[in-house]
Amino acid sequence: METVDFRRHGHELVEWIADYLEHVERYPVLSRAKPGDIAAALPASAPEEGEPFGAIMADFERVLVPGLTHWNHPGFLAYFAITASPPGILAEFLSAALNQQAMLWRTSPASTELEAVSLGWLRQLIGLPPAFEGVIYDTASISTMHALLAAREAAVDQVRVCGLAGRDLPALRVYCSEQAHSSIDKGVIAIGLGHQSLRRIPVDSAYRMRPDALRDSIAEDRAAGRLPIAVVATVGTTSTTSVDPVAEVAGVCEKEGLWLHVDAAYAGVAAMLPSHAHILDGAGRADSLVVNPHKWLFAPVDISVLYCRRMDVLRSAFSLTPEHILQTADAGPGGPGDSVKNLMDTGVQLGRRFRSLKLWMILRSFGARSIRERLSEHIRLAQVFASWVDAHPDFERLAPVPFSVVCFRWNPADRTLPPADLDAANERLLDLVNQTGDVFLSHTKLREGVALRLAIGHMDTTERHIKRALDLLVEKTREL
Amino acid sequence: METVDFRRHGHELVEWIADYLEHVERYPVLSRAKPGDIAAALPASAPEEGEPFGAIMADFERVLVPGLTHWNHPGFLAYFAITASPPGILAEFLSAALNQQAMLWRTSPASTELEAVSLGWLRQLIGLPPAFEGVIYDTASISTMHALLAAREAAVDQVRVCGLAGRDLPALRVYCSEQAHSSIDKGVIAIGLGHQSLRRIPVDSAYRMRPDALRDSIAEDRAAGRLPIAVVATVGTTSTTSVDPVAEVAGVCEKEGLWLHVDAAYAGVAAMLPSHAHILDGAGRADSLVVNPHKWLFAPVDISVLYCRRMDVLRSAFSLTPEHILQTADAGPGGPGDSVKNLMDTGVQLGRRFRSLKLWMILRSFGARSIRERLSEHIRLAQVFASWVDAHPDFERLAPVPFSVVCFRWNPADRTLPPADLDAANERLLDLVNQTGDVFLSHTKLREGVALRLAIGHMDTTERHIKRALDLLVEKTREL
Repeated sequence: METVDFRRHGHELVEWIADYLEHVERYPVLSRAKPGDIAAALPASAPEEGEPFGAIMADFERVLVPGLTHWNHPGFLAYFAITASPPGILAEFLSAALNQQAMLWRTSPASTELEAVSLGWLRQLIGLPPAFEGVIYDTASISTMHALLAAREAAVDQVRVCGLAGRDLPALRVYCSEQAHSSIDKGVIAIGLGHQSLRRIPVDSAYRMRPDALRDSIAEDRAAGRLPIAVVATVGTTSTTSVDPVAEVAGVCEKEGLWLHVDAAYAGVAAMLPSHAHILDGAGRADSLVVNPHKWLFAPVDISVLYCRRMDVLRSAFSLTPEHILQTADAGPGGPGDSVKNLMDTGVQLGRRFRSLKLWMILRSFGARSIRERLSEHIRLAQVFASWVDAHPDFERLAPVPFSVVCFRWNPADRTLPPADLDAANERLLDLVNQTGDVFLSHTKLREGVALRLAIGHMDTTERHIKRALDLLVEKTREL
Repeated sequence: METVDFRRHGHELVEWIADYLEHVERYPVLSRAKPGDIAAALPASAPEEGEPFGAIMADFERVLVPGLTHWNHPGFLAYFAITASPPGILAEFLSAALNQQAMLWRTSPASTELEAVSLGWLRQLIGLPPAFEGVIYDTASISTMHALLAAREAAVDQVRVCGLAGRDLPALRVYCSEQAHSSIDKGVIAIGLGHQSLRRIPVDSAYRMRPDALRDSIAEDRAAGRLPIAVVATVGTTSTTSVDPVAEVAGVCEKEGLWLHVDAAYAGVAAMLPSHAHILDGAGRADSLVVNPHKWLFAPVDISVLYCRRMDVLRSAFSLTPEHILQTADAGPGGPGDSVKNLMDTGVQLGRRFRSLKLWMILRSFGARSIRERLSEHIRLAQVFASWVDAHPDFERLAPVPFSVVCFRWNPADRTLPPADLDAANERLLDLVNQTGDVFLSHTKLREGVALRLAIGHMDTTERHIKRALDLLVEKTREL
């Protein structure tokens, strides 16, 4: 593609994307494709000759668009709702063209230093102390895996060199609540602790980790000769967005000498609000914390931020003298004795694309005040929806609503259904509502059984969308 | 930013990027920024009020552009040279706007199925058998980590549940050549094997792993009670792009029952050429292979492909029953008994952006023939540069040139310098050439000492650029 064609197709694509953003509600939120539809509509082999971009875009529209579930749709109310905001989209376009690869400072001074600066901005906004240094990964799963790697490095002598097998080590233990995310399971499996190393601590009536149960579990493990190494506390759990008592958990970790990692991937940004600053109370005493701008900060996927108060431990876990090809003599701002920071030293990945560009452009384009207003509005909308649920005789709320997610279910006032029937009815109700294409909600399982889950996080979601969700829920109960 | 502004700024950005691509040679390839320059030029805090996009772009140009090392510049001849091609850039723009998150089939049928289709295309192009299923990760480091995780899963009973510590296991061993990439070191550290589990096997005179030495090391480890689990063979090593004897290594692995992973991150795509198809001889007997379209296939970072012949093993390493929120009843194309593929089951990461879109658009926009021609041309250019080095009395080539990378050094014909002086002179020469801003080369260390390294991989690199590199090298020797 010549540059003249790039200009033409680029301008066409700007119009396509702008139309998409303006009219995304024309599409059903949840794709109606059947498994295999898309693959069956595409050739089995790559073309031998190049094709015009217009033909590729035509196939994109014909074959792929029907297979999109529209995460960038204001009726997307499932999982954690997210937004690819216009400044974030433009930043990704620019980032792709620049093709920065920030493995070493010298291979992208701009990306390396903008990462530090923009993560400093975000750190201040959410109220973490300056002792926390940030690094950008792709996903919270990878951020949390690195936090666990740092915990392992801090707790197990010579683990970087000697590993975990073939030596006389006790079984290791990591703790999180029953409500914590499966990324922690994947993390302990990946780094060789084994799935059984993860002890899930019971929660209280509001789905928060019980520090007394945590203390008991640690004591029990120590008595059995196991080695506790880390606790993961969650600020905004996946099902109900409950907030573990971080300060109290931090006290336990300090006393026991355990690494404390805070999973604030979704809710951490809410600490920008004076009304919600308390959610990170005690997080300043944690060793690490993950927050994802691609969740509730209007950044296109992917960008996850790990803040770490002991980044030296993380670095020492990967302190290789790399092959000669990656060695440089660049001195830091402090002169010859001061070495530059090379981002490749903070994790598994050597290659790193220019993700800080979108964070920087979003923070500047929105400004902190506007971001706070939008987060407040999402929280207000969730409260409104919760109040509707509370007021409706045939629906009931199943958990507190600290942020922008509401867990609830249909439970008709005029009859008593056995639990299994109630679960099946709610799953059926969810399918019926999602099939309309107007909104997309997801489900979870709580104490009472299957719960429906409405999550607000798209910047264009308004009261109209959540009213539509309620109306559809009420309407579709007639088909149960 | 309203959509009307998105249109305006989007069109401006198309022009900015097109101008950048057309005139990138106006910039010095290697950034001239000093450490700390960029950070010092940016405010310490995020703005409270939103700012116009024009002001942000102005700061981007003023502060960040001088801090870019231009990977998308035809004079970029360092490390592995890469290209963000126009169709790849447009695909990333579109992908950012769609904001697909393909954790489950239903959360993006298009992304899930296009990944399978486009990886099928690439698999055929490089001649891997259909038994290899592909999955996209961000980087080769993560692909290789997953390959090692699969090897660990296959070799160590109950490792997913029980981990490596606190049980009676022998020390584990992984093998790669002395020339293999540091991602393997990071991989064995991350997954808990320990750095000492990695045995680096000596190479022959052309920097290829010696199968006899591999056999000896395995035997020695078995005799000492250690458990060999995997071998990583490299097709296109980082320093010299040497090719390990994969078929012979595959024979060793089959006999010994070891997982064979092939690191073809850079050079794998060259197997598309009839002249180079042999580089993957034996790779069909491997268990897994990594190839990076963001290296030598004109895709913007990041996209790395892991092909695996035993994807069931990888899946079983992460076979969690996830939290209820991620459970779906979607049946696969085979009907109710056939479950859909959910990409979250193939690795640590839950979130996955729509990376296959750029691979698909690149393969279609270029077409296979044009890609082959470009790869051939890069290889031809490397041969031309190598011939110039060979013909010059004051330069010498230090390794064979199987692909698009040339290792060489200055070694004047009219005097004999001690090795340390020769190394220092070559490092100085590299700095002098890179300071011109016309080209950017990197270095490595080979048997003879410091080697300069010229890598061709940008689609706009022509004979003019490598001639300029040679001229600068010759010219700057006068300053030594």
